[in-house]
Amino acid sequence: MKIDLYDTTLRDGSQGPGISFTTEDKMRIIAALDDFGIQYIEAGNPGSNPKDAELFEKAGKLNLKNSKLCAFGSTCRVGIKASEDDALIKTVNAKTDVVAIFGKSWLLHVEKVLKTTAEENIRIIFDSVKFLKDNGKTVFFDAEHFYDGYCDNPEYAVKVLQSARDAGASAVILCDTNGGRMPDEIGEITHKVAEIVNIPVGIHCHDDSGLATASTISAVKSGAVQVQGTINGLGERCGNANLCVIAPNLQLKLGYECVPAENMKNLTSLARYVAEISNVTFDEKTPYVGGYAFTHKGGMHVDAVNKALESYEHITPDSIGNVRNILVSEVAGRAALMNKMVQIAPDMTKNSPELKEALSLVKSYENNGYQFENAEGSLSLLLLRSLNKRRTFFTVETFKLVLSEPNASNNKTGALIKVKVDGIEEITAAEGEGPVNALDKALRKALTTFYPKLGDMKLIDYKVRVLNSNAATAAKVRVLIESSDNSHVWRTIGVNTDIIEASWNALLDSVEYKLSLDEGLLNI
Amino acid sequence: MKIDLYDTTLRDGSQGPGISFTTEDKMRIIAALDDFGIQYIEAGNPGSNPKDAELFEKAGKLNLKNSKLCAFGSTCRVGIKASEDDALIKTVNAKTDVVAIFGKSWLLHVEKVLKTTAEENIRIIFDSVKFLKDNGKTVFFDAEHFYDGYCDNPEYAVKVLQSARDAGASAVILCDTNGGRMPDEIGEITHKVAEIVNIPVGIHCHDDSGLATASTISAVKSGAVQVQGTINGLGERCGNANLCVIAPNLQLKLGYECVPAENMKNLTSLARYVAEISNVTFDEKTPYVGGYAFTHKGGMHVDAVNKALESYEHITPDSIGNVRNILVSEVAGRAALMNKMVQIAPDMTKNSPELKEALSLVKSYENNGYQFENAEGSLSLLLLRSLNKRRTFFTVETFKLVLSEPNASNNKTGALIKVKVDGIEEITAAEGEGPVNALDKALRKALTTFYPKLGDMKLIDYKVRVLNSNAATAAKVRVLIESSDNSHVWRTIGVNTDIIEASWNALLDSVEYKLSLDEGLLNI
Repeated sequence: MKIDLYDTTLRDGSQGPGISFTTEDKMRIIAALDDFGIQYIEAGNPGSNPKDAELFEKAGKLNLKNSKLCAFGSTCRVGIKASEDDALIKTVNAKTDVVAIFGKSWLLHVEKVLKTTAEENIRIIFDSVKFLKDNGKTVFFDAEHFYDGYCDNPEYAVKVLQSARDAGASAVILCDTNGGRMPDEIGEITHKVAEIVNIPVGIHCHDDSGLATASTISAVKSGAVQVQGTINGLGERCGNANLCVIAPNLQLKLGYECVPAENMKNLTSLARYVAEISNVTFDEKTPYVGGYAFTHKGGMHVDAVNKALESYEHITPDSIGNVRNILVSEVAGRAALMNKMVQIAPDMTKNSPELKEALSLVKSYENNGYQFENAEGSLSLLLLRSLNKRRTFFTVETFKLVLSEPNASNNKTGALIKVKVDGIEEITAAEGEGPVNALDKALRKALTTFYPKLGDMKLIDYKVRVLNSNAATAAKVRVLIESSDNSHVWRTIGVNTDIIEASWNALLDSVEYKLSLDEGLLNI
Repeated sequence: MKIDLYDTTLRDGSQGPGISFTTEDKMRIIAALDDFGIQYIEAGNPGSNPKDAELFEKAGKLNLKNSKLCAFGSTCRVGIKASEDDALIKTVNAKTDVVAIFGKSWLLHVEKVLKTTAEENIRIIFDSVKFLKDNGKTVFFDAEHFYDGYCDNPEYAVKVLQSARDAGASAVILCDTNGGRMPDEIGEITHKVAEIVNIPVGIHCHDDSGLATASTISAVKSGAVQVQGTINGLGERCGNANLCVIAPNLQLKLGYECVPAENMKNLTSLARYVAEISNVTFDEKTPYVGGYAFTHKGGMHVDAVNKALESYEHITPDSIGNVRNILVSEVAGRAALMNKMVQIAPDMTKNSPELKEALSLVKSYENNGYQFENAEGSLSLLLLRSLNKRRTFFTVETFKLVLSEPNASNNKTGALIKVKVDGIEEITAAEGEGPVNALDKALRKALTTFYPKLGDMKLIDYKVRVLNSNAATAAKVRVLIESSDNSHVWRTIGVNTDIIEASWNALLDSVEYKLSLDEGLLNI
């Protein structure tokens, strides 16, 4: 059975704490949602936000393959004709085929927030839907707080839906706006209401009780045919229902059709892409699409997954474009480290003393705040060390950094570095945006004289994590650097109370990893 | 009805990516769980981890008020008597009243992972439970992959439970180990099984489908009386069921009794405390306990919450010790900013030109990557500026930072700072763990001469967030600093491509906020 996905990342999602999209961001997200096969994209609220009006202007020119754009608005103001309501007129002017407007279905809101009567609320809903319909729109009516309203006064809540339907709405969307209802309540009420209104019903949940996914599924099983949500669950408070979790549950587990089957494998990259644009830290624990979703750490789990994949995986990671990860850590022990070790030294066995040495090295670094789970580059160098295969490609004789008056107009930091390779010294200097950038430039500039292939290398990501952060500015920091050349990507780590030194160690590892790779020490 | 909470943060939770507890960490968590009123604390696996044996030694001496400690282990090895299994013997030696052991209930695992027969699996379960029971333990049997096993072969899965019961287990725990089952399946199966086994049944879920909370609730409604999970949902892959979300759902929404009623208001601080010890970034979107759970950003929402709290809150934040937040942002617009503004200037109205000026200041900073949602200190200073009430307490004439050879043994960074207050100059220097720490020390040292009350102030948290992180080491960074004196806590922000300058700006704001506070400019 077909279920329509309705994405509101750009509207409800943008109300999440810390989220602020530019028009350019929104255009990129629209293109990505269209590629993935989302049916409806709620792109903004042109009546309340002038930037959104501009967005619809631009987005209207896109040649979308799969998606319909949808403008969002509200019922007209109390005491005003819909046709004379500025915001509603702007919604019409957004020139989308589809318009979604929300209205009140809970008397508490009608009386205390709108400060009007039950009758006037019905009037503004009917008039607003009819006005949009008369202007040629397909209208979706979002019944805000529907489930709370229904529990308070079922007759009134249903009457609201009927008014929207009678005025020409193509679908009514039932909202658990406060996210406080239980999935079984949602299911029961949806079932009753879907029978009464007799037009397509949608579901819109929030995650305030940790139940948005379950409630959405419950509504679909009870007859809802449109699912509203956001990518990564972005949204006010605890967020909206997460389409990246709901879509695979519905399509891969329960047999509903949400997007074309071949697109589901693009789900993980969609989630990461939108997280990147939203500038939020992606939650790696996210079901299905998170980096940890198929990551095995416990020793027994690693062992069992090596024997039978389905033993600790509810679904195959490639069905949603994700990958399996075997972590190296205290708990995982030898099995995971072996996997890495044999890459470098194929003749290693479970009982090699080098493996024991490597394990104890890893542990002593971990005790100092290192984590190799996301730093295979630094880990490979540790393994080379335990195999006595590590090479000294260069030594750093000295460096100096000078920073002054950072508020002055010319505030670049200067770094001076002297390296030595095979007895030959090279001294150089560089300026950068801050000390780490300056050191990075100077180091690679000095070494490229000896190792021209370092010219292919670039840093692509730099992450700082403060450990024991309650020690404030003297706290330990963990720096992760991601680097690449034309064919590989690797990550290295540094830990220190001094952010410069932590970064410096991660930089040194990154360069050494590249040199070890080029010299064939890593067998990749 | 009473539901027992069984916490496995220290065992299953510690298998989460990035988690590594010291014995000291574990002791602190045990004390916190006991304070909160958790019934059972699974503190570790003494048979597989020597550090856990040491932990039980220490923890056994604690005088726990509410909780029982529980040692975790596995059934004995295939082909070995339980009484001769080293790991099981170590579990007995942990000297807890309660022991939980897991065993296989899915034939796939019996055959492919244990590589034994269905009969031998039943034998090791029966023998292991009996051995523990004979040693005076209360035994909980964790049926790993129970729901998957039941769907594959219900007779065998039930037989596994019956063997554990017949050998003396006090409860059987049904596990959705891979987190792949739907809540209604979990409910139906739990209901059937609880009737058949006729001893207390527990539920243990994982969140791989985003349904751990719903599935746990579904099991409880179907007869489970023990709920297993972890604080903050720590755990392998997508994590275990989150007790911080499940407990308030069960107790405050559904009327079950999990912890003494008066303790529920300590839930938020428990969640944050354990996150701090676990050294993971706390997910502020977490239902109930997250910093965003009662945070209102959308302009209409802010307006409505001012009129009627229940309009956008499913529960009162103080019932779980959380607080309401009104965010300042583009979307929230004037209403939220007004709330802050009237604190400083009680005579302001909605139409004051100062408010318009403040809004446009906030927007221009936001466009540069600032976010005031978590930096009310810097926001207050911006508001003072738009009110023309900002004071110049000091000017910084110059500073120099010198860093060299960070790998040398004496690697402290030196900072030299010259400030001017009312025409009087003061020059001073300080060393620190890294440049930010050095600057912080030098600045406050220089200013304390003029403003002795700065001696009360300290920095309590320092957070770095890299924006546009794919620009690597030249990316913009956002620094948040949390400071306090004896009676207030405030947060300030700095944004720049140079981490030193970003930190410096946040430091300057922090000191200016304290001085403005002491001068009564902020009316707090």
